Amino acid sequence: MTVLRRAAIVAVGSELLTPSKIDTNSLYITEQLNRLGVEVMVKLVVGDMREELTEAVRSLLARVDVLILSGGLGPTDDDVTREAVSAALGRPLAEDEAITTRLRERFKARGFAMPMPETNRRQAMVPAGAVVIENRNGSAPGLWIDHEGKVVLLLPGPPRELRPMLAELVDGPLRASALGEPLMRRVVRITGRIESDVDQLMQPIYREWAAASPPIAATILASPGAIELHVSTHAASQDVVDRALEDAVQRVVNTIGADVYSTDGRKLEQVVGDLLVAKSMRVAAAESCTGGLITSRLTDVPGSSRYVDQSVITYSNESKTELLGVPTELLQSHGAVSEPVGLAMAEGIRARARVDVGIGVTGIAGPTGGTAEKPVGTVVVAAVTANERRCRTFRFFGDRELVKFQASQAALDMMRRLLSS
Amino acid sequence: MTVLRRAAIVAVGSELLTPSKIDTNSLYITEQLNRLGVEVMVKLVVGDMREELTEAVRSLLARVDVLILSGGLGPTDDDVTREAVSAALGRPLAEDEAITTRLRERFKARGFAMPMPETNRRQAMVPAGAVVIENRNGSAPGLWIDHEGKVVLLLPGPPRELRPMLAELVDGPLRASALGEPLMRRVVRITGRIESDVDQLMQPIYREWAAASPPIAATILASPGAIELHVSTHAASQDVVDRALEDAVQRVVNTIGADVYSTDGRKLEQVVGDLLVAKSMRVAAAESCTGGLITSRLTDVPGSSRYVDQSVITYSNESKTELLGVPTELLQSHGAVSEPVGLAMAEGIRARARVDVGIGVTGIAGPTGGTAEKPVGTVVVAAVTANERRCRTFRFFGDRELVKFQASQAALDMMRRLLSS
Repeated sequence: MTVLRRAAIVAVGSELLTPSKIDTNSLYITEQLNRLGVEVMVKLVVGDMREELTEAVRSLLARVDVLILSGGLGPTDDDVTREAVSAALGRPLAEDEAITTRLRERFKARGFAMPMPETNRRQAMVPAGAVVIENRNGSAPGLWIDHEGKVVLLLPGPPRELRPMLAELVDGPLRASALGEPLMRRVVRITGRIESDVDQLMQPIYREWAAASPPIAATILASPGAIELHVSTHAASQDVVDRALEDAVQRVVNTIGADVYSTDGRKLEQVVGDLLVAKSMRVAAAESCTGGLITSRLTDVPGSSRYVDQSVITYSNESKTELLGVPTELLQSHGAVSEPVGLAMAEGIRARARVDVGIGVTGIAGPTGGTAEKPVGTVVVAAVTANERRCRTFRFFGDRELVKFQASQAALDMMRRLLSS
Repeated sequence: MTVLRRAAIVAVGSELLTPSKIDTNSLYITEQLNRLGVEVMVKLVVGDMREELTEAVRSLLARVDVLILSGGLGPTDDDVTREAVSAALGRPLAEDEAITTRLRERFKARGFAMPMPETNRRQAMVPAGAVVIENRNGSAPGLWIDHEGKVVLLLPGPPRELRPMLAELVDGPLRASALGEPLMRRVVRITGRIESDVDQLMQPIYREWAAASPPIAATILASPGAIELHVSTHAASQDVVDRALEDAVQRVVNTIGADVYSTDGRKLEQVVGDLLVAKSMRVAAAESCTGGLITSRLTDVPGSSRYVDQSVITYSNESKTELLGVPTELLQSHGAVSEPVGLAMAEGIRARARVDVGIGVTGIAGPTGGTAEKPVGTVVVAAVTANERRCRTFRFFGDRELVKFQASQAALDMMRRLLSS
């Protein structure tokens, strides 16, 4: 048999083609395959339609070494996986008497008075040459077919049946067939830059990485205010993989600089929290357009009560004056969305909460309230400590929730830089 | 052009083939296509690999009338959708100068000092014969290609860009081309019950619905604190569909009662906001364990400044006393997580913010801080008006973020019931 390197995953079931159900088995299957160094090339969802599925099995098998199908192994007419695989591989179905016997016993054991319906014998039909895999958590057995140097695996759809079955295969026959080079991944998180900018800086490095040994693959995931650079590689030795990835991550950090905020999976609020703990500092926020989102994110982190003790949400001008002592004159002369007001909010909350870091955020989240001079998306972020005042005006795009998120991201990032400097 | 009946959806992106990311765009796309009576036959996820994708486009297009691709339209080398579709259809790429101009303008408008990186011009490459679809929420335009009586549609991957673009197409050219029986769906949102309870009440109705004409299909989607019951049907006439769904929704409302908070797609924070506007009332929250999440959700709703003016986040005991006037004795005798303190917080913020409704929430989000008597997940929610005081102690399960979400849901729901009574 050839070594398994490339896999395809097929989820079978018409319910997975409706707007309310999604195939999640493939995430677990991917995780297990990656552990063996097998890469998933394609994922497919097909309805309970024999011809569609037959065609899909045929065309996918031409392109991968291992094909894993989940679902469609039940006893009803809707369950077409066995028939489709049989047709695609040209391996006729025959009843496996041992399975039928087990099905009858299982049926009896569950206390049904009537005999097993004959339709259930469909579950005992097996393509020629298939190895039956016992299902300890349900009625449909799995099937393993070695076919022209490739592996086709039929697994039941319910996760509680599929997972233990696959886990056993991964520890046994699949591991034996796979290359056994673990595929590992690290994530570098970046903020304060746009995707194409990161990409341009990284281009020459991508080219080097593609030619390196082991080769490093990189993917960018970007959403407003948050960029993730995923680097991955595989090699025979775990040590080689770990070292290659650590080098790759360092390379990104050296290239992108201080805009990298995490290389170990931590979220921005966690990074900020760790900095606050390390410096024994506490923070309080005066939030206008973010409406509490900054403090909510800060307090998503377990243990955040060590550094968060209070914050205020001041939506109206009056509340800015009343709760934060922002002078009415300042609001009138500069407007609520202005750097003097943002700084006054940060100073106000810092003094009133008697903390080390004060954050002030004021802006126009939209969809209304924008002007030519200060359009929707204009947000002022300020951060102050005993010795330093930082303030910046941003212009974010997107809808209300997106502006709020980007503003919270900018405020957390301003804190991070302030605390790192 | 042929009538569109059968569709395939392709999500492009190597990150969607890792164990941690899943394609969810296809759910929205399916919903929109179903509205037009177009059925989804197959869904596919392919990595950022030109040849794989070219092959997939070719083979799928042989089997469906409309092919929708999402993702892979960014400016980087990883973004291969344009090239793959061009190759599969034999339609060479050429730069669309109008797109390049718009890209440059967009880049400038966002206030970057440097000129647009030249790599971004990749986004202006268009297969011969494609119609460009403007993207109001991002840089990558969509593309519509009529090809041998079929439709190939390239949409950007980010949901906030894809959704409005597809919605416009569904109301326009796609509707004109499709001709099936509309499959429509309504969503009933429920809170304050568990899934199995809703399911048990609905079982006899499901059976009636299955036999009805037109038959009504129902699916429950449940997550902690939020249950959605989706009902759907299709028929030749839009009137018949609308009436059948309205009857079904009323049936659910009559069965589940006041735990139904929305039958028209509105989120809970929106329902609460509409009630506040209708009654010309304003709200302020005193949030402890929710850390600002309640106010952040309230202010996710456009126009919420009409009823939100301020809130406070009081994590520590001292801040509860200082900002809300919660008596120290109360905190000492009952503990911070207690109904007397929750009510005092609600009363305190109501008085200090001079609003109609005061909300107080205090609890143990975890993972630490629980005791035998008050385990992690214990949350007190209080809501007070001039004439009414409501308070309840909940015991939520799950991790910190899940407890926070359930607590915010309970607080918003308490407001809803208070304002509806």
